[in-house]
Amino acid sequence: MLNGEFALIERIRRRASSLPAITLGIGDDCSALRVPPHHELLTSTDLLLENVHFRLDWTDMYSIGFKSVAVNVSDIAAMGAEPLSFHLAVGLPVHLTSQQIDLFLDGVFDALQKYRLSLAGGDTCRSEGPLMIAATVQGIAAQDRMVRRSGAQEGDDLWVSGSLGDSALALKRLQAGTALSKFLAQRHHRPEARVDLGQRLAKQGLVTAMLDLSDGLLGDLRHLLDESGVGARLELERLPLSAEFRTALSAQPELIDLALCGGEDYELLFSAAAQQRGALKVLAQELSLPLQRIGGLTSGSEIHIFRPDGELYTPQQAAFDHFRSQKDKVCE
Amino acid sequence: MLNGEFALIERIRRRASSLPAITLGIGDDCSALRVPPHHELLTSTDLLLENVHFRLDWTDMYSIGFKSVAVNVSDIAAMGAEPLSFHLAVGLPVHLTSQQIDLFLDGVFDALQKYRLSLAGGDTCRSEGPLMIAATVQGIAAQDRMVRRSGAQEGDDLWVSGSLGDSALALKRLQAGTALSKFLAQRHHRPEARVDLGQRLAKQGLVTAMLDLSDGLLGDLRHLLDESGVGARLELERLPLSAEFRTALSAQPELIDLALCGGEDYELLFSAAAQQRGALKVLAQELSLPLQRIGGLTSGSEIHIFRPDGELYTPQQAAFDHFRSQKDKVCE
Repeated sequence: MLNGEFALIERIRRRASSLPAITLGIGDDCSALRVPPHHELLTSTDLLLENVHFRLDWTDMYSIGFKSVAVNVSDIAAMGAEPLSFHLAVGLPVHLTSQQIDLFLDGVFDALQKYRLSLAGGDTCRSEGPLMIAATVQGIAAQDRMVRRSGAQEGDDLWVSGSLGDSALALKRLQAGTALSKFLAQRHHRPEARVDLGQRLAKQGLVTAMLDLSDGLLGDLRHLLDESGVGARLELERLPLSAEFRTALSAQPELIDLALCGGEDYELLFSAAAQQRGALKVLAQELSLPLQRIGGLTSGSEIHIFRPDGELYTPQQAAFDHFRSQKDKVCE
Repeated sequence: MLNGEFALIERIRRRASSLPAITLGIGDDCSALRVPPHHELLTSTDLLLENVHFRLDWTDMYSIGFKSVAVNVSDIAAMGAEPLSFHLAVGLPVHLTSQQIDLFLDGVFDALQKYRLSLAGGDTCRSEGPLMIAATVQGIAAQDRMVRRSGAQEGDDLWVSGSLGDSALALKRLQAGTALSKFLAQRHHRPEARVDLGQRLAKQGLVTAMLDLSDGLLGDLRHLLDESGVGARLELERLPLSAEFRTALSAQPELIDLALCGGEDYELLFSAAAQQRGALKVLAQELSLPLQRIGGLTSGSEIHIFRPDGELYTPQQAAFDHFRSQKDKVCE
C-alpha cells in the first residue's frame, strides 16, 4: 500500500547517502553539486518503460532498479568520466505493492553503491498506465580527458570490451518462453557499466573516440563514424563472443546478427591508434576484462563486414530501433 | 508518421541552439557543460504523465511542451538560480502524428528560448501507453547566493508572488466541462516560471528561504517549515487572488481552499525579514509582479490560518497528492 507521495519520498530520502560534492540532496527544489576546477559536468538521461524496455513477467523489480542505474552510468563510462549523482523519476502503477517498490529501490541503491554515486533528487507519481522510469545521471571529467564520439581517425583500430550479443540472445529466449541460464540472465537483467575501463582509457589517453553499446554494434558504430567522419571495416571472426553465445551460434549460424545488431550489450566500443595495442593488452589483463580488436577505421563513411573467407557479409537485420513495431524489431 | 528514433533525434538536434557554457550537446553519450568558478550546479527532474498531470482532450500539444519546460524551470527560479540546460526524455504513443510531435516541440523550444536555456540532450522512445515526459533542468547559482528551503527564521514575514488558486480553479472548470477564459487557460496550461524574481531576490539577499508552489500553498509551505524548523501564521484575507478568482469566490466561498491547497500555481513562496518590506515593494514595482505578504513565521511547527474575524480557519481539503485516487484528490 502506498502512503502517499511524501511518505515514499521520505522513505527514499532516508536511504540516500550523499557524496561531499553534493551540497544539497533530496528535500529542496533542486539538488546542488560542486564541480571541481578544470572539470566538466556530464549529464545523460534514459527512459525505461514497461512493455517497451522491459516486461514485468520476464524480470524482477530488483533487476529493474539495478538496470535503471547501470544503463545510465554506462553513458558516463563511455565518456571516460566519473559518475557522481543520480536523479530518479518514477511513475508507479497503482497495482504495485509496497514490497515491490522496496525491491525496486533495493536494486537502485545497490547499483548506486556499486558505481559510487549518490541519489540527489527525483520525482515520484502514480501512473495510470505502465511502470515508467526516467533516470538522469551526472558525472565529472577533466576538461582535457573527456572522450567524445567524434575523435576517431582513419587508420585507427576499432575495439570492443567484453562479449557481444548475450543480452539479445537472452531476449530472444525470453520471447520464445525459454528459461535463461544464470549467465544470460545476468547479461540481460543486470548489465555492468564499464566505468573503470572508461576511466582508465581516458586517463591513459589510449582512445580517440568511444561510446557504449546500447542499440547494437552496427547502430552505435554508425553514430561514432558519423560524428568522426570515417568509415569502418569489421572482421566477423574477431567479434568477441561468450562460450554460451558460441554454443547457440553453432546450432544457428544466423544468430551472428545478434552480435552485430542486438541491443543492450552495454560494452564500450572505442577507436585507438595502432601503437596502443600493447597498452590495451596490459589494461585488459589489469582489469580482467577482455578487450578485442574487431576491425579498423577507413576513409569514406561505409561499414564493410568481412567474413573469414574474405567475402563481404551483410546482416539480415536492421539496427535496433525503439520506434519500429514489435514485429519489425529484429535485434531486441 | 514517425520515421524512427534516429530521424526524430536529428529533427530535434537541428533545432537545438547551444549556449557557450554547454561544451557538448545532443549527439554524444552525455552532454557536457562548464560551471563558472564559485558557482554550484543545480538540477531538478519532473515527470509529466498523460491522464495524471494532463489530459490530451483538455490541453494542446504546444502547451504540454511549453509547460514541461516552465514547471521545471520554476524549480531553478525557486533557488534564485539561472537556468542553463535542459534534458528531455519522451515516451511517444504510436498514435501521435508527426504534426502533433512538432507542435509539442514548438512549445518546448519556445519555452527554452523564453527562459534562455538550451536543449542539451535527452531520450526518445515509443510508448505502449500514455504520453510520458521526463524533463531535467540544470542551472547555476553563485555559492553564497543559493536560496534553500531551510533558512527561514521565526519572526520572518511570509510572502508569495502573483495570485493563488487560478490553476486549480481552471482544473475544476475543466473537470466540470466548462470552457476556460483566456486568463485561466493561460494560468493552467502556460504557467510562468518566476525566474527574474527568483534571481533578484537571491542577488539582493532579500529572502531567507524559498520554494515554488507546485503542490499547493499549504503542502509546499509544510516543506519550507519542516526544513527550517518553524511554524506559520497565515492571514486568509491577505491571500493574493485574481479578479476572476474573486468573482468565482463570491458565488462559492468554499473555493478559498483552492487558493490554500490547489496545485500548480508555480508562484514563489518565500520568507524575508521584516526590514525587507520596503525593498520587496520596490522590487514588485520594478518587475511589475505583485508580491504579497500573507503572514509570518512562528515558533513550533504548526500552520495557523486566521480569518478576518480573528477566528482560526481549517480548510476542508488535504494538500494535493498525486498518489491519492482521483476521487480523493481535492485540489487538483
